[in-house]
Amino acid sequence: MSGADEFGEIERLFRPLTRGAAGAFDLLDDAAVVPQRPGFDLVVTKDAVVEGVHFPTGERPDLVARKLLRVNLSDLAAKAAEPFAAFLAVAWPTGFTPEQRAAFAAGLGEDLDAFGVSLLGGDTVSTPGPLTASLTALGWVPEGRMVRRAGARPGDLVMVSGVIGDGVLGLAAALGELADPGGRLLPRYQLPTPRLDLRDALRAQASAAADVSDGLIADAGHIARASGVGLRVDLDRMPLSAAAAGWLAGQADRGAGLVKLATGGDDYEVVCAAAAPIPGLTVIGEVVAGTGVEVRQAGRIVDAGLGGWRHG
Amino acid sequence: MSGADEFGEIERLFRPLTRGAAGAFDLLDDAAVVPQRPGFDLVVTKDAVVEGVHFPTGERPDLVARKLLRVNLSDLAAKAAEPFAAFLAVAWPTGFTPEQRAAFAAGLGEDLDAFGVSLLGGDTVSTPGPLTASLTALGWVPEGRMVRRAGARPGDLVMVSGVIGDGVLGLAAALGELADPGGRLLPRYQLPTPRLDLRDALRAQASAAADVSDGLIADAGHIARASGVGLRVDLDRMPLSAAAAGWLAGQADRGAGLVKLATGGDDYEVVCAAAAPIPGLTVIGEVVAGTGVEVRQAGRIVDAGLGGWRHG
Repeated sequence: MSGADEFGEIERLFRPLTRGAAGAFDLLDDAAVVPQRPGFDLVVTKDAVVEGVHFPTGERPDLVARKLLRVNLSDLAAKAAEPFAAFLAVAWPTGFTPEQRAAFAAGLGEDLDAFGVSLLGGDTVSTPGPLTASLTALGWVPEGRMVRRAGARPGDLVMVSGVIGDGVLGLAAALGELADPGGRLLPRYQLPTPRLDLRDALRAQASAAADVSDGLIADAGHIARASGVGLRVDLDRMPLSAAAAGWLAGQADRGAGLVKLATGGDDYEVVCAAAAPIPGLTVIGEVVAGTGVEVRQAGRIVDAGLGGWRHG
Repeated sequence: MSGADEFGEIERLFRPLTRGAAGAFDLLDDAAVVPQRPGFDLVVTKDAVVEGVHFPTGERPDLVARKLLRVNLSDLAAKAAEPFAAFLAVAWPTGFTPEQRAAFAAGLGEDLDAFGVSLLGGDTVSTPGPLTASLTALGWVPEGRMVRRAGARPGDLVMVSGVIGDGVLGLAAALGELADPGGRLLPRYQLPTPRLDLRDALRAQASAAADVSDGLIADAGHIARASGVGLRVDLDRMPLSAAAAGWLAGQADRGAGLVKLATGGDDYEVVCAAAAPIPGLTVIGEVVAGTGVEVRQAGRIVDAGLGGWRHG
C-alpha cells in the first residue's frame, strides 16, 4: 500500500474487519501477531480467485469477496478446523471504482462477522488485469486432530454431505446456459455454505476428508491418492437437490448427466471416509485396496475422466 | 488446482519446496498444520506483486519469485521475527510456459533454502492478465516481543540500516532510464536482502521499526502515525551507497535528489527508533512530540510530499 489516499481508504474499508482482534494492530503494522492456543494446532489454507476464471466477469464485488472467504472456510471445514482469522491480498483492476472497492470490503465484512473470523492483515495493490484476490484462512483443531486427506482405510464407507451438482448447474445458470426457474441453483454457486457444522462429527468419526471443490470424483481421488487406497463411488447413491434431480430427469443420458454433476465441482460439500455411517451424511461407496476412484452407475463401471479408475 | 497434469506439475515443482516440513503433508492436503512453539508468538505478513506494477513486464520468473519472498521476509525482519514458513498463491498468465513456471518455482526454492523457510501450501491458478502472486510469510518472535511500528517515544533516535536510495535508482536502471555502469544498482532493486541479521539488535533496543518499502519518509511516517509521535529526519545524514552518491553528485539540485532517494522506496532496509544508537545503523534524526515527519536538508525544512510535516 502506498499513498495517503489509499492508506485512508484501507483504514476506512478494512480496519472494521479486524473486529477488534488485538494481533491486527488496527492494520497499522507490517505484520500481525496470531495468538497461540495451547493444546491446539493451527490449520492454514490459501486459495486464490481470478475474474473470468473463477467467477464471471463483472460479478458483484461483494459476492466475489464473500465466496473467496467461503471457499477457504470450506477447506478448513473439511479439516474439522474452527476458523478464526484471515489475511487478504486483493489486486483492484484499473477503473475499479471506490464504490466497487467498498462493496468488496462490505461483503467480506458481512461474512467475516457471520463466521466469526477477523481480518488480521494483507495487501491491496492495483492491476492492469482482472480482479484477482487471495485469502489465507486460519483455524484451530485440537492438537494432532486435523482430519487429513490421508487416513482412509479399506472397509471404510465413503460419504458426502448435502447435495452434489448444484455448483456446476449454478455456474451454468450464471453463464445463462441453463434456466434456473426456482432460483435455487445460482445462489449455491455464488455463495456456497462451508460445512463448518460437520466439525464435531468429522473429528469423532472421519478417517479422511476433503472438500468438494474440484468435483466429487476428483476430490474423492485426492483422498484415494493421499491415503494410498482405492475408492468406489456409486453415482446412483449421490444425493441431489430437487433442482438437480429435475435437471437430470430432462437429460437424454442419465449416466452422462450424473457424471457431469459428479465432476463439475464448486459444491463445497465434504467427502469423507469413516468406519461407520455419520448421521446426516449420505453413503455413496466404500474404500478398497488399490488406487484411484472406481465410478459405477446402473451397476456398471463408467469412465468419469480424470478421476477415473486405475487398478492398483 | 485441477486436472492431472497440473497436479503432477505442482507436485514436481513445489513439493521439494516444503523441505520436508511435516505440516505441509507433501502438499497433498486441503490445508497445512503450523507447529506451535511455546513461548513464542506467530508473526504473519502477506504481500502481493503484479507484473507491470511491482516488477517490469517480462521480468525473469525466478527473480519475481525470489523478490516476492524477500519483500515478505523484509516485513518479518523489521518485526525482529525469525521466518520459517510460507504460503504461495500464484496466477500464471495464459501462455506462461512450463519452463517459465519451473523457473519461478526454482527461484523460489533457491531462496527458501537460503533463508531456511518451508513452503507449506497455497494455490496455483491461471489468469488472462499479468503474472500475479501473493505470499504469506510466517515467523516467530519471543512472546510479546514483536517490534511494532507503535512504540517510538519522544527523545528516541531515528536510525536506518544499510543505505537508502539504491532501490529507486535500481528501478530506474531496470527501466533503462538510468545508466548503471558499475552494475550495483539493478541487483539492489531486483533482489533486495531482507535485514534478518538485525533481529537481535532490534529485539534488544528498538522501540519501533518498519521496513523501508514505500520509501524512507513514508515508512518513517508509518512509525510516527502508529506511535502517535513526530519524527525529524535530516536528509544530509541519510546513508548512501557509492553509486547513489555518484548519482547525487551529478544532480543540479542536491536537495531534490535527496528527496527522490528518501521517497523512492524498494530499499528493504529497516527504519527504527531506539533510546540509544544501535551499532551498525545510521542515526538520521530523532523522535519528538507531535505528528508526521519533519524532513530537513541543509538546515532547512523541505517538502517531501506525502510523508511531509504536519504539526500536531
